[in-house]
Amino acid sequence: MIKVIKNGTVITMSSNREKIENIDIVIENDKIIDLVKDYNGEYDELIDATDKIVMPGLINAHTHLGMGYFRATNDNLSLQDWLNKKIWPIEDKMNEDDVYYGTLLSCLEMIKTGTTTSNDMYFFSDRAIDALKETKVRCLFTRCLADINNDGDKRIDEFLDLYNKYKNDELIKFSVAPHAMYTTNLEYLKKCSKLANDLNLPVHMHYLENRKEIEDIKKIYNMTPLEVLKESGLINNKLILAHCTFLDEENLEAFKGKDISIVHNPISNLNLGCGIADIIKYKDYANISLGTDSQGSGNNLNMFYHMSIVDLLQQGLHENSTVLSSYEVLKMATINGAKALGMSDTIGSIEIGKKADIIMLNLNSILTEPHIDIITNLVHNAFNNVDMTMINGEILLKNKKLLLNINEKDLIKIINNRIKKLS
Amino acid sequence: MIKVIKNGTVITMSSNREKIENIDIVIENDKIIDLVKDYNGEYDELIDATDKIVMPGLINAHTHLGMGYFRATNDNLSLQDWLNKKIWPIEDKMNEDDVYYGTLLSCLEMIKTGTTTSNDMYFFSDRAIDALKETKVRCLFTRCLADINNDGDKRIDEFLDLYNKYKNDELIKFSVAPHAMYTTNLEYLKKCSKLANDLNLPVHMHYLENRKEIEDIKKIYNMTPLEVLKESGLINNKLILAHCTFLDEENLEAFKGKDISIVHNPISNLNLGCGIADIIKYKDYANISLGTDSQGSGNNLNMFYHMSIVDLLQQGLHENSTVLSSYEVLKMATINGAKALGMSDTIGSIEIGKKADIIMLNLNSILTEPHIDIITNLVHNAFNNVDMTMINGEILLKNKKLLLNINEKDLIKIINNRIKKLS
Repeated sequence: MIKVIKNGTVITMSSNREKIENIDIVIENDKIIDLVKDYNGEYDELIDATDKIVMPGLINAHTHLGMGYFRATNDNLSLQDWLNKKIWPIEDKMNEDDVYYGTLLSCLEMIKTGTTTSNDMYFFSDRAIDALKETKVRCLFTRCLADINNDGDKRIDEFLDLYNKYKNDELIKFSVAPHAMYTTNLEYLKKCSKLANDLNLPVHMHYLENRKEIEDIKKIYNMTPLEVLKESGLINNKLILAHCTFLDEENLEAFKGKDISIVHNPISNLNLGCGIADIIKYKDYANISLGTDSQGSGNNLNMFYHMSIVDLLQQGLHENSTVLSSYEVLKMATINGAKALGMSDTIGSIEIGKKADIIMLNLNSILTEPHIDIITNLVHNAFNNVDMTMINGEILLKNKKLLLNINEKDLIKIINNRIKKLS
Repeated sequence: MIKVIKNGTVITMSSNREKIENIDIVIENDKIIDLVKDYNGEYDELIDATDKIVMPGLINAHTHLGMGYFRATNDNLSLQDWLNKKIWPIEDKMNEDDVYYGTLLSCLEMIKTGTTTSNDMYFFSDRAIDALKETKVRCLFTRCLADINNDGDKRIDEFLDLYNKYKNDELIKFSVAPHAMYTTNLEYLKKCSKLANDLNLPVHMHYLENRKEIEDIKKIYNMTPLEVLKESGLINNKLILAHCTFLDEENLEAFKGKDISIVHNPISNLNLGCGIADIIKYKDYANISLGTDSQGSGNNLNMFYHMSIVDLLQQGLHENSTVLSSYEVLKMATINGAKALGMSDTIGSIEIGKKADIIMLNLNSILTEPHIDIITNLVHNAFNNVDMTMINGEILLKNKKLLLNINEKDLIKIINNRIKKLS
């Protein structure tokens, strides 16, 4: 099965190619097999990209997909109050079907806004995987690990069951995910570190989301967060650290030379009053990717929206408009995300041999024209311009319409009924 | 001619009413004549707002509508470099038809994104007014005043011609707009202050956009910006001050009790590396409204997008998620904008006797559901949800389609050709 995306303006995100090329993309089954000007070979399906932007699907490097119910529900709560008073009481009542439908909503939102891969951490994972498989979204997935009521081992067992069941899946890969230092303990983190090493999986964890967390960790461990990272062994794992709103010099120096990726979650960090992560300071020490967090604190999973604010925030924070370019932001949401997830050989850029995770955008409207500086415009104005989303060579969205056998209106009704019952 | 907006969820923005009401809005010609549950009187046109959000049109309190050409063209330039190297060289070549088409694009962008009034400052104003009248957008308009090559009086004459021609217009009202202190001088500012007093018009001016501006003003005037405000008499005018990125205690104290409105332009201020205005500190001293600035620094005129970041920025800046609510942000973009423009008797909220500047939004989609907390969701996720826009009782957008006799595709072609020639 050969598909060709023809006549597009292609933003490759490849360090081996031009930033913008007018090339045709030839896809065989799940893979990009050729990138060529004016392809005139055979094909089974033609995707006309004339006057469209074509680029790799976006990679959302920190999500809780099951939380689709909580969209824009934090008006005025701190991280700790929001979790304790709003989220956790509802989550305690959630059943596995709730998580299935929440994940389903999130996956459709991602497909419609051009995200083809997410890095997810939540619970009731079997039913969440059902939603992922139904929507065919690529995912670095896991069962979130915590050890609050001595139930940590049970969670690890659940994770292992899940891992063994799906470890050979094409679209679902795994991380080991201790939730955060404030929901675990040193012995448990050591177990997680060893488990990730044994299975050769990355570790995905919340780290230094706000200042209070730093104090909480010091109380629990009688150590600094960095000392916990070192003592648990985690610092030597392939680490994906979500948030990192406050990394001091000591942390940054310790990260140097390690296999550590930071997931910047700007909207969530602002919304919960955590602060603004100074990623300009971080970028020489670790790979910087981009995440939305859940809709609860991130308001939505639209990576184009979240991208739009990244360079602006740094420019405001540093009172300097030259500190971060739009192209660097686009890298965070594509190839850097792929690196974070350990998938840079297969996704994150448009290159021969990589998986065909590709999106197409139409910027030809009164709201987005003129687009003289394509990349700047794409990063800052393309909130609703994804026309086509392809994952693993399969078209899931075409002319803005989902090609999946899911009734959106019914799903919305189900979601609204379920959150009413849970609230 | 009676129109009724029926069965909507109405966000009134009126201090005399509930925040959210299920009421029908009865409109006669240009005015709201009744707000009533289950209206069963006569009407000529019914607008079914079932399952929709209805609210006052947004007020963009600082624009340069003619700059539609410059969308998202500042990737990495400071305010001064951007003006000197990118904007001014092109503006020098612009003719009045360029300004007409740029304004036309901006007006269509506003109508499509729910803005019904703008506070504009630019040049070639006769042709800009042609675009405003063609698109029927409400505007506090002006010819921008500066005195760079001893041409200040000529500009005032042009302003007066314009004012006298249109002073009785229904939709176009006027401000007196000295561009900024760094493009004028003390005598000229005194003239502007007097002119505004004589004509009973507000003054619209850029003020303290970045730190360098403060130093530049001190060099030109041998006074602080605040001293210039006082010495010129402007501080006693009805003042609309755009930006105010840095207002110290002295400025704030001097503003107290005066008729001063600040226009917060968060995206523009970030984009140009100016910084983050601490509006939490300001709000006890002046009325705070919201502006996009031009598409050049604001990236777009979509007030829903600009709103989405206002409370988040303050929450990040103050590391406190309780400092500003979504409802306060909505006020900035509606009733506070009306106050800034001296129009709070006629627009900015849905109240009996006010002009029918009303928009309707559809939040029933996978990207915006569930919407449990309607106002939080509206402020943070409604980038592309305006279904209907009505200005002065006339529907200009219906089911997302413009009802104006303007061919959008042709306009886009014209815009692209013109900016190519100018660049």
